[in-house]
Amino acid sequence: MAPKAPKFEIKTPKGTKDWDGVDMVIREKIFSTITDVFKRHGGTTIDTPVFELKEILAGKYGEDSKLIYDLADQGGELCSLRYDLTVPFARYLAMNKDIASIKRYHIAKVYRRDQPAVSKGRMREFYQCDFDIAGVYDPMIPDAEIIRIINEVFDSLGWKGTYTIKLNTRKILDGIFQVCGVPEPLLRPISSAVDKLDKMPWEDVRKEMVDEKGLDPAIADKIGKWVVLKGQRDLLEKLQADEELSKNESMKQGMADLDTLFTILEYFDALHTVSFDLSLARGLDYYTGVIYEVVTEGSAPAVSASEAAAEAPSKSKKKSAKSSDPDEDRSNDPTLGIGSVAAGGRYDNLVGMFSGKTQVPCVGISFGIDRIFSITKARMAAQKTTEKPRKNDVDVFVMAFGGGKDFTGLLKERSQVCARLWDAGIKAEFLYKVKPKLPAQFKAAEQNGVPFALILGDDELAQGKVRIKEMGLPAEHPLKEGELISLEKLEEEVQQRLVLKKQLDSIVREAAGLRVVHGIKSDDVQVSSTDSPTPLVTEQPTPATSDVQTAERPAEAEAKAAGGSNP
Amino acid sequence: MAPKAPKFEIKTPKGTKDWDGVDMVIREKIFSTITDVFKRHGGTTIDTPVFELKEILAGKYGEDSKLIYDLADQGGELCSLRYDLTVPFARYLAMNKDIASIKRYHIAKVYRRDQPAVSKGRMREFYQCDFDIAGVYDPMIPDAEIIRIINEVFDSLGWKGTYTIKLNTRKILDGIFQVCGVPEPLLRPISSAVDKLDKMPWEDVRKEMVDEKGLDPAIADKIGKWVVLKGQRDLLEKLQADEELSKNESMKQGMADLDTLFTILEYFDALHTVSFDLSLARGLDYYTGVIYEVVTEGSAPAVSASEAAAEAPSKSKKKSAKSSDPDEDRSNDPTLGIGSVAAGGRYDNLVGMFSGKTQVPCVGISFGIDRIFSITKARMAAQKTTEKPRKNDVDVFVMAFGGGKDFTGLLKERSQVCARLWDAGIKAEFLYKVKPKLPAQFKAAEQNGVPFALILGDDELAQGKVRIKEMGLPAEHPLKEGELISLEKLEEEVQQRLVLKKQLDSIVREAAGLRVVHGIKSDDVQVSSTDSPTPLVTEQPTPATSDVQTAERPAEAEAKAAGGSNP
Repeated sequence: MAPKAPKFEIKTPKGTKDWDGVDMVIREKIFSTITDVFKRHGGTTIDTPVFELKEILAGKYGEDSKLIYDLADQGGELCSLRYDLTVPFARYLAMNKDIASIKRYHIAKVYRRDQPAVSKGRMREFYQCDFDIAGVYDPMIPDAEIIRIINEVFDSLGWKGTYTIKLNTRKILDGIFQVCGVPEPLLRPISSAVDKLDKMPWEDVRKEMVDEKGLDPAIADKIGKWVVLKGQRDLLEKLQADEELSKNESMKQGMADLDTLFTILEYFDALHTVSFDLSLARGLDYYTGVIYEVVTEGSAPAVSASEAAAEAPSKSKKKSAKSSDPDEDRSNDPTLGIGSVAAGGRYDNLVGMFSGKTQVPCVGISFGIDRIFSITKARMAAQKTTEKPRKNDVDVFVMAFGGGKDFTGLLKERSQVCARLWDAGIKAEFLYKVKPKLPAQFKAAEQNGVPFALILGDDELAQGKVRIKEMGLPAEHPLKEGELISLEKLEEEVQQRLVLKKQLDSIVREAAGLRVVHGIKSDDVQVSSTDSPTPLVTEQPTPATSDVQTAERPAEAEAKAAGGSNP
Repeated sequence: MAPKAPKFEIKTPKGTKDWDGVDMVIREKIFSTITDVFKRHGGTTIDTPVFELKEILAGKYGEDSKLIYDLADQGGELCSLRYDLTVPFARYLAMNKDIASIKRYHIAKVYRRDQPAVSKGRMREFYQCDFDIAGVYDPMIPDAEIIRIINEVFDSLGWKGTYTIKLNTRKILDGIFQVCGVPEPLLRPISSAVDKLDKMPWEDVRKEMVDEKGLDPAIADKIGKWVVLKGQRDLLEKLQADEELSKNESMKQGMADLDTLFTILEYFDALHTVSFDLSLARGLDYYTGVIYEVVTEGSAPAVSASEAAAEAPSKSKKKSAKSSDPDEDRSNDPTLGIGSVAAGGRYDNLVGMFSGKTQVPCVGISFGIDRIFSITKARMAAQKTTEKPRKNDVDVFVMAFGGGKDFTGLLKERSQVCARLWDAGIKAEFLYKVKPKLPAQFKAAEQNGVPFALILGDDELAQGKVRIKEMGLPAEHPLKEGELISLEKLEEEVQQRLVLKKQLDSIVREAAGLRVVHGIKSDDVQVSSTDSPTPLVTEQPTPATSDVQTAERPAEAEAKAAGGSNP
């Protein structure tokens, strides 16, 4: 009885997607690259629930609170899906009063009911990778280490020279606003307006300040003199030289902080990627000190909203934005860039919002993995990388050789050989057929890019031998037909060849300047983490292996080379 | 201005918890152990959203559907949190019609609004680790590989000899019911009753069949003759020998399946852990063939519900169960065991429930990580393991030596040395103080069990040297005061000592038969995955290092040995 097709469309919820295949391999590599950096800096990981009590999230995200997903009221507590990993971390610190200091990292999904743009990595369910340093320390040392971590992460991802860490501090920003005469209640709204300078020209931002927030135009003009400036120490010196600014208490603190920060960043060899940018304000309310945001090619929109409006003057800009379906995917909207790929800052008062008096000052960074992934994919496409990451790591495909009516299929022998390889920690598979044909087995091995075939045949087994054959060797290679090895020493013989092949591949890759994924490191030499230490084989590489990664491998030819022609 | 304490209790939602510290380290080791096995069998991983369209989950879980968490209706689609990883996998296969076969694994959280028992690993948010083989293959080969995978996972976790894979098939169970005369509509209800035989005696199960489900008592008695039986091939032979049973079509298929399965399991050396158990029925509707469930010590309740009722005869069993608060934690309820630690089976029709005609037969296993964790923790407590896993992996703590009024704190030098170590992929940290005291630095290093201190001092730096000191050496050790190494060759010198120490530790551990966590493998020799291959140093171990893992390390003494006495 065939089941009936369901009446609803089979799909994932809007703004979410399944991850699989090569995409998943790339994403996992990004995760492991970032985790390596986090561990190198002494990070320990924690895991908090996907949903929190609704009250925990309330009042933490300002205007964006409307994007929080709530769970249905099914009796019991009211809960919401987490919006970021920072508020749960602060809640965790408030609950664990014995933890006065910690370097914690957390890689997990967060949820925002935002308008999605899936191809740009703007998802409703997306991963954040956070590293935060909590504790009372001397000023700016942890802040500098976070900037250093940002450098290490993007350098490890192969982005050297293609990203900028925009940096500012709330103290300087607030100081400028105060000196310019912004009334206290307008500080955060004006700050939000300034934050849009990466998406729209100053004229539009000024308009928002004056027309929407009701700021005195003269004050707006004073602000405009400062917030468009970018630099490094030069800009800091310009601020320090301004008599009016340098009298302000908040400015003084902010300038002293940046002076210390820049000095330590020089020690860390991590200042060159930083752009001190007075337009950076960050939307969230909880930041109290240094703030930063990492941008790269593609972060900014291709077309600004006002340009788009100018091209379509019949519709007012505001109207067209409001009338669009909030569930609709905006992947093709040129006024939407990928945005920042990492962001963070210092938040010294957030823990106190939960614990009352006990404050734990914190500074941290959050990497937006889905956006980093989107950019990586786009760069791979642009580079037309021929070398594709494999979908699994299988090292050996165990096959039966033979045909005709006496052919048993050797299921018993294939099973036993696989079991021995698995026991030795070697990744192996075989075809789930009782009597498989040789070309079908080669085809299955090729589809996954398995590097070695282990071919069992009645004659060889009778002599206590099996044939091992490296896949994809050229026709003239002396080992094209494989080698007979002792069945007794099976594990050892296979292990040796695997180690040698991985070494050769990595030498060849290095020599060719190739990378599996742009900037993502190739597999290490280890065969499996459960291996006992294997002596490294030191033979010289033979040039013949250099085509292994890219060569076409017709299964029929391989099967023929192995001496097999099934009936 | 100190913030006010909030008026609500700061906690995680009921049935959920934060994971951190040593617990997190143990859980991550369990994950990596399982992932290694999955990869060894050619698994590729996929990731699906935490929530699915509500319709996708509807009608898949029978009575348990009431435990599904729904998202609030905030406009747009209606969604629910996933209840397991199997239904999302089937939905994924239905959406991706080009994938006719796959071995996929998925490690992710699932959600059930069940009554929690946190200390027993019964959570409302918990991890499942699933491995499934999808595709049309010759009978029972993938099913056997799944059983083999179960063996490898629990053996790798160090559980050898302490677990049993209870196995049955729906075909035999239904065959027995049919032959005994159970009417078609009662098949699944009677199956559910039989499934409770691990928690209650046959008499209670019989009562439920007759009194609650309305089964003819004579039929119940016939069933009772069979479902209490356990065995292996002997039991299969007993069934095959029964004339009446072996005429039934479903029985015939089931018996042929088990015959093949047992044969392949023998090939795989994986039959010894299997108990063919006719009482195993599994609750979920979607299984169509082989089913299994892994139990261990602690899986069964300490006291059966009827015993508990006999001890407290004033309350009726049913009433007391109903009256309890469904949100209340039942960790101390003796009638509740940890339950099975892994379970699964064959489900050939689930994909068709989404895709209509296109069927993709599947077989899989789901490991209950939180329960495995609870048992691991309990065993560690019982063994009073003195060796605790470290919370982070830092290898080197970089310190400043000195004091008095001329002491600069060497922040610049510490920062630069750390930056060089990080560049070399070495895990390093330093104290975030401008002028730290030596004992405070040693204390920080000891708290995290960092194996090496790198001590910078003005005099040594002037000679181009730094002192490296292994932590925790006994007073009489020749290297107690550390060694001077060249600052120029810093990375190389440190790397060499790290590799040597890891080798020695692993030899010492092996010699002592110690394990960091019962059954969980110790770290491999690699220093970091970003290292270039480091030659393995082959010196003999010195016995003096054997106390490193357990010795007390008073920071003052260490600081003194290093020649430091801050004012």
